[in-house]
Amino acid sequence: MSSDRKNNIREMARQNGIVQPLLTDLYQITMAYAYWKSGKVNDTAVFDLFFRTNPFQGEFTIFAGLEECLKFLENFHYSDSDIEYLKQTLPATIEYEFYDYLKDLTCKDIKLSAIEEGSVVFPRVPLLRVEGPLIIAQLLETTLLTLVNFASLMATNAARYRMVAGKHVSLLEFGLRRAQGPDGGLSASKYAYVGGFDGTSNVLAGKMFNIPVKGTHAHSFVTSFSTLGDIHSGTLRHADTETQCDFLKMVLECRKRVSEILDVSPEEASDGELAALVSYAQAFPAGFLALVDTYDVKRSGLLNFCAVAIALNTCGYRAVGIRIDSGDLAYLSVLARETFNQVAKELDLPWFAKLTIVASNDINEETILSLHEQGHSIDCFGIGTHLVTCQRQPALGCVYKLVEINGQPRIKLSQDVGKVTIPGHKEAYRLFGADGHALIDLLQRSTEPAPEVGQKVLCRHPFQESKRAYVIPSKVEHLYKVYWNAGKICTFPKPLVEVRERVQTSLRTLRQDIKRNLNPTPYKVAVSDNLYNFIHDLWLQNAPIGELF
Amino acid sequence: MSSDRKNNIREMARQNGIVQPLLTDLYQITMAYAYWKSGKVNDTAVFDLFFRTNPFQGEFTIFAGLEECLKFLENFHYSDSDIEYLKQTLPATIEYEFYDYLKDLTCKDIKLSAIEEGSVVFPRVPLLRVEGPLIIAQLLETTLLTLVNFASLMATNAARYRMVAGKHVSLLEFGLRRAQGPDGGLSASKYAYVGGFDGTSNVLAGKMFNIPVKGTHAHSFVTSFSTLGDIHSGTLRHADTETQCDFLKMVLECRKRVSEILDVSPEEASDGELAALVSYAQAFPAGFLALVDTYDVKRSGLLNFCAVAIALNTCGYRAVGIRIDSGDLAYLSVLARETFNQVAKELDLPWFAKLTIVASNDINEETILSLHEQGHSIDCFGIGTHLVTCQRQPALGCVYKLVEINGQPRIKLSQDVGKVTIPGHKEAYRLFGADGHALIDLLQRSTEPAPEVGQKVLCRHPFQESKRAYVIPSKVEHLYKVYWNAGKICTFPKPLVEVRERVQTSLRTLRQDIKRNLNPTPYKVAVSDNLYNFIHDLWLQNAPIGELF
Repeated sequence: MSSDRKNNIREMARQNGIVQPLLTDLYQITMAYAYWKSGKVNDTAVFDLFFRTNPFQGEFTIFAGLEECLKFLENFHYSDSDIEYLKQTLPATIEYEFYDYLKDLTCKDIKLSAIEEGSVVFPRVPLLRVEGPLIIAQLLETTLLTLVNFASLMATNAARYRMVAGKHVSLLEFGLRRAQGPDGGLSASKYAYVGGFDGTSNVLAGKMFNIPVKGTHAHSFVTSFSTLGDIHSGTLRHADTETQCDFLKMVLECRKRVSEILDVSPEEASDGELAALVSYAQAFPAGFLALVDTYDVKRSGLLNFCAVAIALNTCGYRAVGIRIDSGDLAYLSVLARETFNQVAKELDLPWFAKLTIVASNDINEETILSLHEQGHSIDCFGIGTHLVTCQRQPALGCVYKLVEINGQPRIKLSQDVGKVTIPGHKEAYRLFGADGHALIDLLQRSTEPAPEVGQKVLCRHPFQESKRAYVIPSKVEHLYKVYWNAGKICTFPKPLVEVRERVQTSLRTLRQDIKRNLNPTPYKVAVSDNLYNFIHDLWLQNAPIGELF
Repeated sequence: MSSDRKNNIREMARQNGIVQPLLTDLYQITMAYAYWKSGKVNDTAVFDLFFRTNPFQGEFTIFAGLEECLKFLENFHYSDSDIEYLKQTLPATIEYEFYDYLKDLTCKDIKLSAIEEGSVVFPRVPLLRVEGPLIIAQLLETTLLTLVNFASLMATNAARYRMVAGKHVSLLEFGLRRAQGPDGGLSASKYAYVGGFDGTSNVLAGKMFNIPVKGTHAHSFVTSFSTLGDIHSGTLRHADTETQCDFLKMVLECRKRVSEILDVSPEEASDGELAALVSYAQAFPAGFLALVDTYDVKRSGLLNFCAVAIALNTCGYRAVGIRIDSGDLAYLSVLARETFNQVAKELDLPWFAKLTIVASNDINEETILSLHEQGHSIDCFGIGTHLVTCQRQPALGCVYKLVEINGQPRIKLSQDVGKVTIPGHKEAYRLFGADGHALIDLLQRSTEPAPEVGQKVLCRHPFQESKRAYVIPSKVEHLYKVYWNAGKICTFPKPLVEVRERVQTSLRTLRQDIKRNLNPTPYKVAVSDNLYNFIHDLWLQNAPIGELF
């Protein structure tokens, strides 16, 4: 059995724990009973799952969570204890045959179409289309929303960090301790990776999703050492010769040498910190990355780090770098790089100039942009709270709306035109220009022929009559595939690494002005002329003639 | 076996799925190896878990998550597959004996002291004190933080909603679909209940934690009906006589009668909506609570609701009320109440005036305050996104700091005085005044005698020399109990309902000005004179003599 497959099974076991039919709002079940009781068992419905506004004041969203939705459908089943709980909870007047009905329910009659996971998506374009028996489709609402909302929000947030950081900076997710509960942390690690992060500190996420895990040590490790006497043994085995080196002696000599180069006094550096770094280097001689801000970056941390790193080099190992977790990250990273350059030059160790500098204190999109403006020498950001809780907007507002029942379209009206739903069974197409950029997403009634390459298509604003334009696409992408039908997965979702790649290829099809951080241009979502007329005819049929507007 | 006990077992099963030793940051494990390798296996340490700032610009926090921490300690064990994963993930240079050491690790040598779950707590006062082997205590850090941070944040958020809503309004948590993942939703439901909510829509949370679950129907239920022809059967069995009533006919007659009373035209009301409400009432005749804003509250929803409710009354049932999910909630709730009063008077049905009005659209603390100012007639708020994601501040910043090692105090210095840790093994006391209000929390060294009732105590600001005051307590509460020692739970955490009560009794000991929403007064946290001198002596010993300040 492949390790991916094993991970999938483990993940499923986890999901089965909590992602189950009762992970829903009670009203889904009371509605199911009311439908059942009023003879709607054979009614069929179409629901669209979509959002109305992009998060983070941006103009794009990354769709994620599809694989978890499919697993939910696959495992959808009320256990005996679920039924027992419902019997205790719902009114005693409920007919017992309803519980028999629930007990046998599965998703075998549901058909789920979706946009490919990892794709860039936009407001109003359904991410999922769920077709099948009204009662069952309704019962899926809350859980599907829960699975898509946070996954997509996190993937979008991570993708935004990736964009502002640029391609050449590593991004690590460090947020588990501040996440919204244990699973909030796991989902955050998973979808941060999907959105473009390079790894996580979360070991369980690493194990479950096969994501690279990273981490070295904390301040408490440094403060647990007080003096050089706390070092257990001063030796280190040479990487190549395997002889025991007097490592501590070498470190102290190096510290003296480096303090002259850097013109700082070795007396000012903390011996407790040095003891900690020596011990850490002895444990991870080939992976030495040290936290240097416990006492004073300039006068203690950098000096001690350089001493240990140079001694390691003498023993045949190359240090990895440093982490800075407080203070002025722009200034300190530049200072560290200058220090490394100086040591590289004076000791003729060119690789020393290229040591990794990790920064990790309360970083968000704005901090990264501001650091870029100021100039810095950071190679890697470790990002926690702001990333994993999506502090700037902690929820995506996906909704799940009935758009057709027994072949008849349904429209939900609202005084707020933004909340009017687009009725009926629809298809979505993305039209591309000759330069490869996405031009517009077009919703059509499913009965209409697909737009064709090189053919003029009239694209209309769904609600503003006068806004319309002709588009001649150079490429047309049908956005939906059927993922679930007749009781089984019919398009297998891609492995996580491929979803992660899809995010970047999909983002590349968007014009830069749509993706920029400040005042981005909205991407256009249009309806066909046919769908436009269909919406507005229904609207007039359904809207009561009201008071004077 | 009691149902509570069953629920506990179920919850534990869930937790075992993801709350496990690998739900941690990798650096805990690399540090563990470095400690192990440098001969620190027998070192003992004391860690404090605390936060530095109250959330939501408030001046208090509710401590929660303790029970989950205890279950984590109870189940702490690296499985074979965990060890296998770590072997694959950590550098090949790691000595294999370390994995044997990990394999046998449990929390039998850990001692955990904590404040009672559900208590009001304040910055700098440790919520948990973890004592025991350095390596194991360090390995617990991330998971304990994950379990305490979100639980306490949610409980605090819920308690704040409860305070602004007042005692006489019901509060329901409706946030699952917008929560940060499936478990984020479950934790939100659990700790919203702890903080003072009356129930949740989340069925699984109801089942697992024995929380009341609530819910009726959604807009999609209403829009799935088009005409009166969609009603399956027009009859309803009388509650007392058990004869079949011609329910639909009664409803239509009632609608005519009510339309005259309310001076609205029955033609303007939606027949689809009426069909939905009739069907819902047939399914839940004794629990009829209807959503009335699908089309138009005034001209359709209220009229249809009253018609069904009066007909139900004729069949021997009392309706419960309505839910409004959009529009001007103050205006619409007052309009609904006036309508109910009018019907009550005209038809001599006094209970009609007391029908429940639920409001549920995008509600947060400010909305409730503003509704209170405007005047409204809402009996119950259903609250989702803002509550469960803690939108105003989605993370609590608890930290876990080493304060003592092998009996020697440790201090973490910082240029930011707010980040300096209070060193050593400490006790915390809450001193109360004669009126029963909490006056101050006092941290002391554990070697000091406890403050005594009626005896003058010098309370000092931990960092500002001149800020000090004498307090004569009328009551002294020692804040810590030992919850875990010698490998088992030694104080059993209270059941959820008691933790929920504790929140309210604990909040009542706080002066109103500390709890108010706008510019609350900070509650004071002090240190004893002895601890003050201890901190500052250590500070001077540890701080390097630096550049000119």
